[in-house]
Amino acid sequence: AIVAAIRAALTDGPLTGRHVIVTSGPTHEPIDPVRYIANRSSGAQGAAIAAALRDLGARVSFVTGPASVPAPQGVDVIAVETAQQMRDAVAAALPADAAVMAAAVADWRVLNGSDQKIKKTGDMPTLQMAENPDILAWISRDARRPRLVVGFAAETQDVTAHATAKRLRKGCDWIVANDVSPATGIMGGSHNTVTLITETGAEDWPRMDKHAVAARLAARIAEALA
Amino acid sequence: AIVAAIRAALTDGPLTGRHVIVTSGPTHEPIDPVRYIANRSSGAQGAAIAAALRDLGARVSFVTGPASVPAPQGVDVIAVETAQQMRDAVAAALPADAAVMAAAVADWRVLNGSDQKIKKTGDMPTLQMAENPDILAWISRDARRPRLVVGFAAETQDVTAHATAKRLRKGCDWIVANDVSPATGIMGGSHNTVTLITETGAEDWPRMDKHAVAARLAARIAEALA
Repeated sequence: AIVAAIRAALTDGPLTGRHVIVTSGPTHEPIDPVRYIANRSSGAQGAAIAAALRDLGARVSFVTGPASVPAPQGVDVIAVETAQQMRDAVAAALPADAAVMAAAVADWRVLNGSDQKIKKTGDMPTLQMAENPDILAWISRDARRPRLVVGFAAETQDVTAHATAKRLRKGCDWIVANDVSPATGIMGGSHNTVTLITETGAEDWPRMDKHAVAARLAARIAEALA
Repeated sequence: AIVAAIRAALTDGPLTGRHVIVTSGPTHEPIDPVRYIANRSSGAQGAAIAAALRDLGARVSFVTGPASVPAPQGVDVIAVETAQQMRDAVAAALPADAAVMAAAVADWRVLNGSDQKIKKTGDMPTLQMAENPDILAWISRDARRPRLVVGFAAETQDVTAHATAKRLRKGCDWIVANDVSPATGIMGGSHNTVTLITETGAEDWPRMDKHAVAARLAARIAEALA
């Protein structure tokens, strides 16, 4: 990885001079000082994408939640925990030529959280949720919108239909969609089977390891920005 | 660690011939296929205790939730995810001479969870909770109760008072109590500052690394079972 970072720094690639923001990993939404709501994203796909973009010469701002895989070398790492922190970190990293929003951002945060550990005695807690900032929708419509905005859709059913609708609803250019049903082993696994949704339709990519998915996506991004 | 395991197997120690159950790590309580409620336990203290008991010659059943530190060598590892699975695994590991319940078991599970990923569209979810099995209270009063039952108390205020009350309420012999306020850095950190609550009162132990806490606790357990 260090060799790749040095190579990227020394060599011209198709993304040399471009700045790309990549978000990755889960977000954690606190319930109290010891408990939180999490999700099964390992950050493996996001880290692989950041590394692939770096290998093509891009300057990468890597905004990552608490992932279980390490951040790649040779990228600017901005570590966050919650969705609100991730939104603020993305805003601070703008402007950018492209944004790849691979993080599994929590849709909701806990509204009635506590500064002290909630005791078991007393009434059973009911967690009320508030909607988190929609980072993909916001960046897709912001005045400083990157030229190319790529979102992700983790679905458990009707993947292409849901992802196609998501692309229009969010206002992004592409959606990388996949089926994260537990039986697929994609969340936390080494491989991925994705469908790329663009303005021209849906492309089903074959099952590949996450580095191969990342390399193919990075090459497409380089084409789009050329 | 492998050397230690071999040494324990070959050498008589004060716990040779004894069986100790150690629970460790967090539990994860699913909300839907991708989201879950977690807690900040790394499993470091529980893993260190299991290793220290093994070093004194004990046969250790190590029942662990999804921890971020690896299980020690030379113990029987039983990996679980939820509190209910942990209770069942502890029950299956009985009888035992001692039980050290170091896991940060979720007090509640989600009652209105979903088999499909909950969509953001539509009403905001409200998570209703159901109480999880209280593994410490159950094992302390079970017909097959180990001779020595050690519980843990992770508190953020009034540590000794809460832990002393917890010992009586649960029916266990000892409570290892600590202050897990974020400022202490104990959850996820390398050191621990504990108070041992026994039938004779509260002993404040000095701040030590988690391996030293484990070695001291294992020696006390060996004394109690002698």
